Amino acid sequence: MLPADTRRHHLSLLLQCLADTGPLSRADLARATSLTRVTVSDLVAELLADGLVAELGTKPGARPGKPATLLGLVHDAVLIVALDLSDDTVLQGALIDLHGEIVTRDAVELGSARGDAAVDLVVALVQRLVATSERPVLGVGIGTPGVVDDKGVVRQAPNLGWYELPLAEAVGARVGLPVSISNDANIAALAECTFGAGNPDGLMLVAIGHGVGGGILMDGAMLGGPLLSAGEIGHVVVEPGGAPCACGNRGCLETVLAVPHLRDRLAAVTPDAVASELEAVGTTLGAVLAPIVTTLGITDVVLYGPAELLDGPLLGAVRAAVAERSMPVVAEHLDVRMASLARDVVLTGAAAHVRFTQLGVV
Amino acid sequence: MLPADTRRHHLSLLLQCLADTGPLSRADLARATSLTRVTVSDLVAELLADGLVAELGTKPGARPGKPATLLGLVHDAVLIVALDLSDDTVLQGALIDLHGEIVTRDAVELGSARGDAAVDLVVALVQRLVATSERPVLGVGIGTPGVVDDKGVVRQAPNLGWYELPLAEAVGARVGLPVSISNDANIAALAECTFGAGNPDGLMLVAIGHGVGGGILMDGAMLGGPLLSAGEIGHVVVEPGGAPCACGNRGCLETVLAVPHLRDRLAAVTPDAVASELEAVGTTLGAVLAPIVTTLGITDVVLYGPAELLDGPLLGAVRAAVAERSMPVVAEHLDVRMASLARDVVLTGAAAHVRFTQLGVV
Ligand SMILES: [Zn+2]
Ligand SMILES: [Zn+2]
Repeated sequence: MLPADTRRHHLSLLLQCLADTGPLSRADLARATSLTRVTVSDLVAELLADGLVAELGTKPGARPGKPATLLGLVHDAVLIVALDLSDDTVLQGALIDLHGEIVTRDAVELGSARGDAAVDLVVALVQRLVATSERPVLGVGIGTPGVVDDKGVVRQAPNLGWYELPLAEAVGARVGLPVSISNDANIAALAECTFGAGNPDGLMLVAIGHGVGGGILMDGAMLGGPLLSAGEIGHVVVEPGGAPCACGNRGCLETVLAVPHLRDRLAAVTPDAVASELEAVGTTLGAVLAPIVTTLGITDVVLYGPAELLDGPLLGAVRAAVAERSMPVVAEHLDVRMASLARDVVLTGAAAHVRFTQLGVV
Repeated sequence: MLPADTRRHHLSLLLQCLADTGPLSRADLARATSLTRVTVSDLVAELLADGLVAELGTKPGARPGKPATLLGLVHDAVLIVALDLSDDTVLQGALIDLHGEIVTRDAVELGSARGDAAVDLVVALVQRLVATSERPVLGVGIGTPGVVDDKGVVRQAPNLGWYELPLAEAVGARVGLPVSISNDANIAALAECTFGAGNPDGLMLVAIGHGVGGGILMDGAMLGGPLLSAGEIGHVVVEPGGAPCACGNRGCLETVLAVPHLRDRLAAVTPDAVASELEAVGTTLGAVLAPIVTTLGITDVVLYGPAELLDGPLLGAVRAAVAERSMPVVAEHLDVRMASLARDVVLTGAAAHVRFTQLGVV
């Protein structure tokens, strides 16, 4: 038995070969990868069982008595179970195909469930979606608020009462499928690159809702960082000594830009001052983004949140402020815009994460 | 013949096996990696020829008549040729071991050489260092100012008259060794993580000299980005409408922080105002860094440049400004300091880059 990491690498190598060059026989795959034929046959059996690969008949020109069966990649043969735990009251779920299309939706009320009880609800929702699926399930992807490590341990998700919880392992053991867990805003950025118009070589997504979070892709990968907090733009201080914030500081970007605060600000001014109020907030966001955009040299900044608030004077002011304060070559290539996916970014991001983890492709 | 990428991956897999578990036979390596024995023998022959692996005698308990030779990793068997092209007048070179120790130095005057003539000087310096080496050379690493892609093409390095120059290929063809090319500031950041005290999961190095540049490591890798410009903090605008900058903008961080500008500023004030002048510049740098530090969630910010200017009131003010404007959890873990390597970061960074490219380890 190969170590799991090596096995996963070899599986990905076989899938990449099939994706790059089209249908191949087991012998072709062994030659192309220099893995032993026994190993290739064993791995192909797993891919056939998963429905990721199909047998496509005999290879033309094969010697009689020694027919070689061609193997091909099957995009529509599998579905992904995706969950979005970012809502405080309802856990959202869906079956999603490899193109990011939602096939079926399901949901469960969170109620007062926290800790283990919340895990039970997650497992039940996954099981219901698996039972609904008419195709093999490639894996389970879960987007959660909070801090998640690359082993699928939720370090903290206070809203769900989870601390140091090995969620991927716990759910995986009960549903018998590989489980990928990520921070909700990080996979929203991944969704924008996998299924939307985003550039995976350099994109920052700013998620604006009850709080302000975000995710970054650089050089084709989601950034994590030593604190597993990459993308957390909401707690950059923009007004030292300003309004108190949940993080313990004062004057964070979140205290100005989060939807409830933004609505409060707009409610406090006369209708003809709304546009200039939105512009002021956009300028603040742009001033925070400029050093990030220039120093990372990214080409895509996307805002995700209520279009009626963001997609107007606010977005225009972000664009102007970033352009004014960035290196010319960066400003020229930069696109600051609303996310191309207007909804379900966490669900489709969870599916993108499973696709990335299992198949190795953004 | 395997594709070069696959071959490189397999070589790295073998080296990692030997690094992880100690001496192994060819058969052990085949079992551990599930590569064919023929492939393993072929790859081992290459590693033996490179001097990266040595035969350590017969495996105890091997059957008579079928002795299995143990293979082990050899850290001190090879040297790396490293070049630093960041100086306008002299091209610096060195032979460096896998621990980052400089064994021999050499240099060549650049004079008025540009374009192909500058390439000739680079090749001559590499050849001289190779000829000097008493051990096999693992590869050649070159740090250059300008924009470099991951194929070793210098997109532009105006000081050397290079535009769209496939430098890795050109030098490699003439010296018969693998050549890695990188931006000087990016590999300075890599050096700090490979041979210094830096955390490769999240570090930003700010290089302060004639200009201001930098490099970032996240999740164990140097960031590049779609414009190959990650780390270029020098052209964040800090004084809109301020002093003109080489990039075409006005008021860039570089116009305040680059050594010549900094010295001019200090020369213009009375001696008792020097400290407050340095503090003001440090506060400006800290304000640029805070959004980057919080949003990436990095733990290490290191300044590289003249200690007599940077390591005092300026550094203190950077620390204070970053702490004031960053998320508390990030500020707690953050270390803002002078680079632990006080010199030769580009040379040792070039060696670190070869080590990373050839062996797959930071
Ligand atoms: Zn905050
Ligand atoms: Zn500039």
